[in-house]
Amino acid sequence: MEIVLNSPLDMHLHLRDQEMLNIVAPLTSHSFAGALIMPNLIPPVTTKDDLISYKERILQATKNDTFKPYMTLFFRDSYDYDFLKSFGDELTAIKLYPAGITTNSEGGVSGFDIKKLAPTLEAMSELNLPLCIHGETNGFVMDREAQFVPIYEKLATAFPKLKIIMEHITTKESVEALEKHENLYATITLHHLLITLDDVAGGMLKPHLFCKPIAKRPHDRDALQNVALKAHPKVMFGSDSAPHPQHAKESCGCAAGVFTAPIALAKLAEIFMVKSNENNLQKFISDNARVIYGITPPDKKVILEDNEMTVEQKYGDVVPMYAGEKIHWRIKGIK
Amino acid sequence: MEIVLNSPLDMHLHLRDQEMLNIVAPLTSHSFAGALIMPNLIPPVTTKDDLISYKERILQATKNDTFKPYMTLFFRDSYDYDFLKSFGDELTAIKLYPAGITTNSEGGVSGFDIKKLAPTLEAMSELNLPLCIHGETNGFVMDREAQFVPIYEKLATAFPKLKIIMEHITTKESVEALEKHENLYATITLHHLLITLDDVAGGMLKPHLFCKPIAKRPHDRDALQNVALKAHPKVMFGSDSAPHPQHAKESCGCAAGVFTAPIALAKLAEIFMVKSNENNLQKFISDNARVIYGITPPDKKVILEDNEMTVEQKYGDVVPMYAGEKIHWRIKGIK
Repeated sequence: MEIVLNSPLDMHLHLRDQEMLNIVAPLTSHSFAGALIMPNLIPPVTTKDDLISYKERILQATKNDTFKPYMTLFFRDSYDYDFLKSFGDELTAIKLYPAGITTNSEGGVSGFDIKKLAPTLEAMSELNLPLCIHGETNGFVMDREAQFVPIYEKLATAFPKLKIIMEHITTKESVEALEKHENLYATITLHHLLITLDDVAGGMLKPHLFCKPIAKRPHDRDALQNVALKAHPKVMFGSDSAPHPQHAKESCGCAAGVFTAPIALAKLAEIFMVKSNENNLQKFISDNARVIYGITPPDKKVILEDNEMTVEQKYGDVVPMYAGEKIHWRIKGIK
Repeated sequence: MEIVLNSPLDMHLHLRDQEMLNIVAPLTSHSFAGALIMPNLIPPVTTKDDLISYKERILQATKNDTFKPYMTLFFRDSYDYDFLKSFGDELTAIKLYPAGITTNSEGGVSGFDIKKLAPTLEAMSELNLPLCIHGETNGFVMDREAQFVPIYEKLATAFPKLKIIMEHITTKESVEALEKHENLYATITLHHLLITLDDVAGGMLKPHLFCKPIAKRPHDRDALQNVALKAHPKVMFGSDSAPHPQHAKESCGCAAGVFTAPIALAKLAEIFMVKSNENNLQKFISDNARVIYGITPPDKKVILEDNEMTVEQKYGDVVPMYAGEKIHWRIKGIK
């Protein structure tokens, strides 16, 4: 059996920089037509020069692939209308990190004072620039996302014309918030469709499945699967694929992030073709994002077949999800 | 400032065997007067010969220390009165593991059928042999202990003369169960008095703090601290100190267990002398266990002083809790 996906998009991707960029970028650009690139480099992407030069390094790394990097800025409340307008088509969205909440987010937002945020968020509304948020508080690890939902709701209410993307949602509470506010959307990762905290810490501790937000309870995973598999029009795929060298994962202080870029399409095909269908996968992997972001990715057809593949143990020094295990679908060809 | 503890006891200790036994046993026998030795070797301790020879290996490993290993058998429902009576004073308690719930527990109990368990548990009641239970179900990792509380209660009700020790409790629910049944007791570890899941997985992932049961929520830790610091007569110290080689902790599948044996007394002194007092520490570390188990440990006086020490990075190939960090109390001398 074969399916064909048109211009798959990964609307939440970490490509890092330098050597790591060169290893991981081709693993996405090979099979995706585009991706929303996270700006949490060291230092973060906050200027037009940063953004253009990072985009050029990405295009260099992806070589001749048909692939469009949709670029983001690291949120600052000092950004004004003229500054943001100056990016023209180069800027697709702005990513907001609460301070200190994940890898390289130290310079993020530490309060959500509507008045302080208003100039930037109103400019973004006018320019139709979506705001992508890593929505976690500094509370107890299993509660951080649910505790952030009221902040999502406060922002959605205060800025009704601003498209707010709840990034890599992991909880039933976030899924429910989608229905309450017209301007709330969400990305969902592959791994949060698959795992719960039991997979991370229920048997042996699995550092390669440790991520932020941490995987939650079975009922949370069920809620995510429910909206993803039916291709709810407000949700889209964002892998949050986050490469770290093996030594940074298998150590006495393991960095957060699951590396799924090289296996995402095959595993999504496996899941959707058992529990849903090709049409919903097409929406989840591309069509919903085109509508939400108003983007037209390059043409790219990815043919997948239900033939087993064994996942590589490593890409460079990065261990992917399902390393050494089998996935029952694989990419047959790309046009 | 100095305090003197009389015959400290660790009522839940993993000493392993062979090379590991030789590394870790002296770290406990040096400062404790006795310890309840867990029987989950490979294969587990299930016969008198196993038990006597393991005890001899322990005494060999502890060399000339004043130290009494209180031996346990791995629970089997085939044990009868005559078999258990034949151990005489050699047997202090029996440890029950639900099947597959922690390191080397594969041969444990997989149902809690009162009729099936009755012959052994009635024999234990008659012989005044406590039953020590690792109380977790196979449910979601954060719920396993709370889900097991009804099983504790069922056993406590069905066998009112059996002393049941809820081992290494981690939840408010277990603390509450102590008050409901006269024959329920508990051990509490050092690490569960100190950490929550936030310490394991809230920042970087910390494999050396990964244990079973997994550390829970702040309100659970508060409940444990409350009964430990006031030296509730039904609770006693059990370190559950569980050594694993460094490579088994810092790897893609990290084994469960926190190694606290070498630092337990100093850290407990630090905690109790700030939040409680010497008298309650003496009860928690020894007196309560003597009453609950009806044991008289060898005489040993441990003098502790409030002087800083830096914890070793490793003992053999085992990384202790607080490796390289400072503890504000230390052992000054032993008589």
